[in-house]
Order: sequence, then C-alpha cells, then structure tokens
Amino acid sequence: MLAYQLIERKREGRRIEPGEWEALIAAYLRDEVTDAQMSALLMAVYFRGLHRDETSALTDAMLHSGATLDLAHLTAPRLDKHSTGGVGDKVSLVLAPLIAALGAAVPMMSGRGLGHTGGTLDKLESIRGFRTRLSLSETQAQINRIGCALIGQSEEIAPADRRLYALRNSTATVESIPLISASIMSKKLAEGLTGLVLDIKRGSGAFMPEVERGIELAQMMVSIGHRHRVPVVALVTAMDRPLGRACGNALELEEAIHALQGDGPPDLMRITYALGAEMLVLGGLAVSRDAARRAMEVAISSGRAADKFREIVEAQGGDPGVVDDPSKLPQAAVCELYYAPRAGFVATVDPRTVGFGVIELGGGRSRPGDAIDHSVGFVIAVRPGDLVREGEPLATIMASDTDGVAAGRRALEAAIKIADEAEFPLPLISHRVTIDGTMPYESSDTPVDQVQIHV
Amino acid sequence: MLAYQLIERKREGRRIEPGEWEALIAAYLRDEVTDAQMSALLMAVYFRGLHRDETSALTDAMLHSGATLDLAHLTAPRLDKHSTGGVGDKVSLVLAPLIAALGAAVPMMSGRGLGHTGGTLDKLESIRGFRTRLSLSETQAQINRIGCALIGQSEEIAPADRRLYALRNSTATVESIPLISASIMSKKLAEGLTGLVLDIKRGSGAFMPEVERGIELAQMMVSIGHRHRVPVVALVTAMDRPLGRACGNALELEEAIHALQGDGPPDLMRITYALGAEMLVLGGLAVSRDAARRAMEVAISSGRAADKFREIVEAQGGDPGVVDDPSKLPQAAVCELYYAPRAGFVATVDPRTVGFGVIELGGGRSRPGDAIDHSVGFVIAVRPGDLVREGEPLATIMASDTDGVAAGRRALEAAIKIADEAEFPLPLISHRVTIDGTMPYESSDTPVDQVQIHV
Repeated sequence: MLAYQLIERKREGRRIEPGEWEALIAAYLRDEVTDAQMSALLMAVYFRGLHRDETSALTDAMLHSGATLDLAHLTAPRLDKHSTGGVGDKVSLVLAPLIAALGAAVPMMSGRGLGHTGGTLDKLESIRGFRTRLSLSETQAQINRIGCALIGQSEEIAPADRRLYALRNSTATVESIPLISASIMSKKLAEGLTGLVLDIKRGSGAFMPEVERGIELAQMMVSIGHRHRVPVVALVTAMDRPLGRACGNALELEEAIHALQGDGPPDLMRITYALGAEMLVLGGLAVSRDAARRAMEVAISSGRAADKFREIVEAQGGDPGVVDDPSKLPQAAVCELYYAPRAGFVATVDPRTVGFGVIELGGGRSRPGDAIDHSVGFVIAVRPGDLVREGEPLATIMASDTDGVAAGRRALEAAIKIADEAEFPLPLISHRVTIDGTMPYESSDTPVDQVQIHV
Repeated sequence: MLAYQLIERKREGRRIEPGEWEALIAAYLRDEVTDAQMSALLMAVYFRGLHRDETSALTDAMLHSGATLDLAHLTAPRLDKHSTGGVGDKVSLVLAPLIAALGAAVPMMSGRGLGHTGGTLDKLESIRGFRTRLSLSETQAQINRIGCALIGQSEEIAPADRRLYALRNSTATVESIPLISASIMSKKLAEGLTGLVLDIKRGSGAFMPEVERGIELAQMMVSIGHRHRVPVVALVTAMDRPLGRACGNALELEEAIHALQGDGPPDLMRITYALGAEMLVLGGLAVSRDAARRAMEVAISSGRAADKFREIVEAQGGDPGVVDDPSKLPQAAVCELYYAPRAGFVATVDPRTVGFGVIELGGGRSRPGDAIDHSVGFVIAVRPGDLVREGEPLATIMASDTDGVAAGRRALEAAIKIADEAEFPLPLISHRVTIDGTMPYESSDTPVDQVQIHV
C-alpha cells in the first residue's frame, strides 16, 4: 500500500521524502505501482505542488532510471541549452555548432514538434539522410571527435520520464511547474553537463504565457541544477511573435545556416548571442559576456561556426553541401507573396496562429507519427510595431499546392493584425534567473541590437 | 481526446455536462477511457468537487450501467436504509424485518466489513447456510413472496460503480462527498425504491467524523434522490462510541435477535425506531412518526418482527432455529471478563480501537478475501458518562484462544478511558436532513429514551 499512502499524503498537501520518491519510481517501472495510481498522484501534485527538495528527488529518481552520457573524461566544458518552445525558434541549430566551434562539448538532445511549435529534430531531418537517432555510444564517440551531437532523446535515457510524460499527456497533468522541471532536468542532467542555459518563453505563443509562471519554472530548474551541482542560467524571452523570419522546417534550417554565416535576422542573433554568452561564461571559455559575444562574432565571421555545422551534418549522415547551397534543401512546389490588406502599424504576428498554419500546410503533425512536408511554411518579413503600406508584401507562403496557399493565406490573415496606432511588443529578453536571484535583463552589453530590433 | 478534455475542464474547476458524464462512463466501460485517465479525473473531482447536477448525472450513468430490480408491480412501498458505517451498528438486521413485517417491501443490499467497521453480510453469515449472494431474479421472487431480502451487491447492479469503487480504493480518491454520494445512490436507486432513509454517522468512529461534512453528504444524497423522484430523509447519529453492546459478527446478530424480541439496548432501539419511523412515513404506512413508533412497538411485542426475520433466514438457506435459540450461533472458545482498572467516569469507548480489536481477534479482514471467525468480539456494558467502581466488569472478551484474549484486553485498555470527571458524549441523533432543509433532530416524539440512553 506504499503508493496509496503516498498519494493520500500528497493529496493532503504533505511532503513525500526523497527515499520515497526513489522507491515509488522504481516500483512504477517494475509495474508494482499502476498507471492509475501514478496519474492520481500526478493530479494531486498538480493541485498541491512539490517542494524544491521533492522536485529534486523526483528528478534524481527519473535521471537514475536509465543510462547517462559518460563525458567526464573530457577536459572541455559540457554545455547545453534548453528552450521551453516557440514558433520560429531555430536557436539550437545556430547555437550548438557556434559553441562547439569555441571549444565546448555540446551533447544536445532535442524534441519533435509539439502543439503549435516546431521541433529541432524535424528541422534537421530537412537534410536528406540526417540521422537524429544515435545510440549513446555513437553520441559519445561523435562528441569526443567533433565536440557536438544533435540527437533525439534516446530510449536509454530517463525511461521513467518517457513513461511519465506519456501518462501526463493522456491525463491532463502536463501543466505543472514541478513536473515540467523534473522532466526537463532529468534529461538534461543525464547528458553529464557542467553548465546549462535555459530559454524560458513568455507571451501568447509560449506554453506558459504568463511571465510570473515562466520565472517560477526558471527558478525551479535553476534550483534543481544547483542541487545537482550543475550551474544553470535562465533567460526569459519574448514569444508574442515568431522568432526570426522563417517558420517551417527547411526554411528555418536555411535561416539558421544564414545566421551561422553572419546573415541572421537581428532578434535571432540577439537571443543566440545572449544564450551563448551565458554558456561560454558558465563553461569558463570566456571571462565575461562581452568577451563571449566578441568570440562568437569572430567564430561566425571566420567561418568556423559554419564549418562546425558542416562537420556535424556529415558525421550524422547528411549532405554537408546544404551549408554552402541551401537550395539543396526540399523546395516547396508553390510560393506566393502575402500583401498588406491595409496601411498601418503591425499590431500582432500571432505565433500560435502561424504555428498551426505551418501544421495545416503539412509542415507539422496533428497526430504523433504523421509524415511531414519539410519544404512548406512561411517567411514573415514584418514584426509588431512595423509601419506598412497597403499592398506591401508582408510574407511569403511556401506550400505544396494551391489549396495550401489558400490555407496559408487564411492563417496569415488571422495572425497578422494591422492597426492605426503602434503597440509595443514584449521586450525580447526581459529577465535573467540564476541561483543568486531573478533580475531584469541587462542589455548594456548588446547595445547595437537595441535599435536594430524592429527595423 | 474526449477524456483528456473532460479531465482538463474539471481540473480547471469547470462543469462537465450530464451527456458528457454518460458518454464518459460508457467509454470507460468499453475500455476506451483508461483507468489512468479516470483516476486523474477522480483526483480532480476530489479537489474541485461536483455540482449537484453533475453528481446526479454521474449517479445516473452508474445506475444505468447495469440491471435494476423490477419491483414496480408491487403495491407495497419499496423502502431501504443505508448507513455510512460504524462499530456495533446492527440496525439493518433489526430494521429490515421490522419494516417488512409492517407491510413494506425491503430490498436491502448491504456490504462486507470495511476498515474498522463490520458488515451486515458478514454478520448474517454467522448463520450457517445463510446465502447473501442471490441473483436478481431470486431477489425479486423472494421480495414478492415475503417482502424482504438481505443481500450483497449483485454483479449485475451498477457495474460502473464497482469498477470506479475499486479504482478509488487504490488511488486515494475515496473521501470525496460527491463520489461517495454517487456511489451509494447509484446502488440504492437500482433497487427501484419509493423511499430511502440514511443513517449518517458522525464522531471519531465515523468515516467522516466532522458533523459539517456528514451534513453535506446527507444533503447531497437527499438532493440526488429528489432529482430521481425518490424521497430521502437522513438522520445524523453518534459514532463516538459503539452502537449497542455487542461488537463482532455472531454477537451482533444475537443482539439484533434480542432487539426483534423486545430486549434490545436502548441506543440501538432508539436509532432503529427513529429510522423506521421515517421509512414508514415515507412509504405512507404511518400517518406520523409517533404513529409509526407505536406500530413498530406492536410489531415487536406481537412477535411479528421476529417471525419475519425467521422467514428471511429460512428463505435464504439459513437455520431459522437461531431466532429462538441464539446459542446455535458460533460460540467463542474462550470468554473472559474485562474489569475497570480504576474508579471514575467512563470518558471514551473509542469505536475505532474496538473495531480494529475485533479484526485482531479474527472477526474481520485485514485483506479482502481473508476468512473470518464469526464467534469472536466484545460485549461492552458501559457507555461514556457512566460512573464505574474499580474492579467492576466493563466488558466481555470472546476469543478463539488465550492470545486472542490478551489482544482483546489490550484493545479494551486502549479504547475505554476512565477519568475523574464526566464528559458528555455526542447526542445520539442530532440532525434531520430532508429536501426542505437541515434541522436539529426533534426528540419530542421519543421522550422515554432521553433518560434511558446512558443508563
């Protein structure tokens, strides 16, 4: 009756001890605790929350339910980034090779598209032949050799998290800060990191739109990292509009390649540099965020960042030629411009509507396992706050046929609102959360972007 | 994703519509909704509650998941009583034959021992050969013939409740007023009643000790009955001490036989008469509770109530001779008196401790399916408030061996506290709940018991 008593205790708002979390997860994996008992407990956790040490113990139990990457022999710092997910967010594709090019080991585990957001693995698979399923030993060997691997969550990593995640997904217990934190951190800690950076999205296109909840999530994960002796820094960033211009798998990969070559959109570059600066400082590869920023600019301008991406693509079975000729990526059959229906200020570019629009074009899944068309999507030239003339091109629709174009047009009509007066979007980066506390984000070390951002 | 959306909605504290409850329960019985989803929903209901019309719809869905008793052809009113359970509560054994003797049809479905409380079925099975598992058609035939059947819950009745009850029992979602109400009422409504009386226990030995929660439960069930056009009256009664003197299966059956013969303990008689008066008035078999009370006294003094019990025992395969000679019931091997360790006022006779004591003697189950010894238990002569001398016999322990006697002695030492000053126990009947409201219980129609109760 162990499980019964723990459910009852949590239901009453009382604490479950670390050893009990460990025993519970172990019993669950042995099928001695039923899915029904676990889902009742998860719902009780949804209502009652978890203390930080309970969340840490749950993370630990899930982390130790499977294998971990063994990278302790490396002299290089082992760094990764996690994002809570958004539309047009191709930061991982730029950041991983960039940071690896500067001497870090980057064992980056990513996911598939979820809800209205795209997934890094789907974007990478725009490259013909690119393998995202590497075994743990393949991953370790690749990191030893070239410092970076871009992979999906292995079956060997945190199997308890996989089962619990599927259960939460069928029982409406996903939206719980301690459960989200434990799920993310158990996987990230399994990578054997020496530092982790988090991109916590806020705004209408984020899974957790309210900034207060985002900060709470950031603080919880920073605290779990601290208890596991892995320093974690979180930045809270805007997801009230898509990030960058491209939304869709091959389109985003192409934009990431341009960014690695020094030609990325300013918002994408600013977030990439901000997260990268935290990683390089955490890893001891830069003495300050300013110095880190300069090092990243050089890595890009010298071509070393793009070279590293080419190495990764080749190592994982893809055609490295796409880096030099992105037209080798899948190209959409039909391509049409979308024009401003009236003059005025762009009031919204709603990321959820854009994201679901990509899915409707065939670029994402309605059900797990659906095939996707990597070529389709949008390139959106405008940002909230921009002044536009009637008839000015605002976006390009890439579709597989004219029906797709019509669907894309409807999505853009709903997503892009034009108003008579300018409204201000959310600040691109608003908060920085570390173990020392939560502070407004200091933008003084990146003055240039401040004026570029809505150009 | 029907189930997911309903869980999410209830989690957010919003309403599930009647048709949705029906569809959900139907899908659950077809295994299209998993136990995990259902237990997550039940936990959300635990935290958020259900509106009365939701509880009524859930009751309806469970009621219609199986067969119902078809007694509509009877001219007699169809009446039953349900108790939330206590220690020493043998009221059903007296009330069913008593009310049937006065012309009602009494299709009484009861349960097994649960937690620290005994069960009517276990008590009846003290009679060798007594069958508590009758089919629905056997039950109907017996009620047609002799007006009463004392049976367990048939597999045919409310199968959805059976599954949900087992699930709640493993996932710590039992203690929810709407779920308890729906579970009880779905089974009672399946009996095709024209009136129902509830005995809602309060005090330390009740499953729901606080009187406010007991009243809430009573109101919910009265409301469900009303929506199903079955008038329900609830009395709130004391369970801060055992009811009557006997605790243990055959001992309680013997006490019930004495009560049917006019020789029952005053508290047992008062509650039996109070509940019986409500039933007879609900059924139109008496014009007032006073008149009902007089009719019941005559039914007992004339021997008709005891005759009816003899008929029931015979009809269900037991030896009716036990009614005339209770020594035919199983007799304990060892029988010892328990004496007052000091002089003073009896402060407590703790029903939980007494109830678990009976289980320890072998008279109840620690696990479902355990065999039980019907002969063991306690007969406790004192009540809270009684003044006792040192060395005065307070109780008798009936056990299967001397180890049992020692265990029984320890239980009584813990249960019976003697203090220097008298404390007042809870009033035996404190509230009466009907569709018109909740009132203090009017004791004016039963003046005699007021002075007898703690004699």
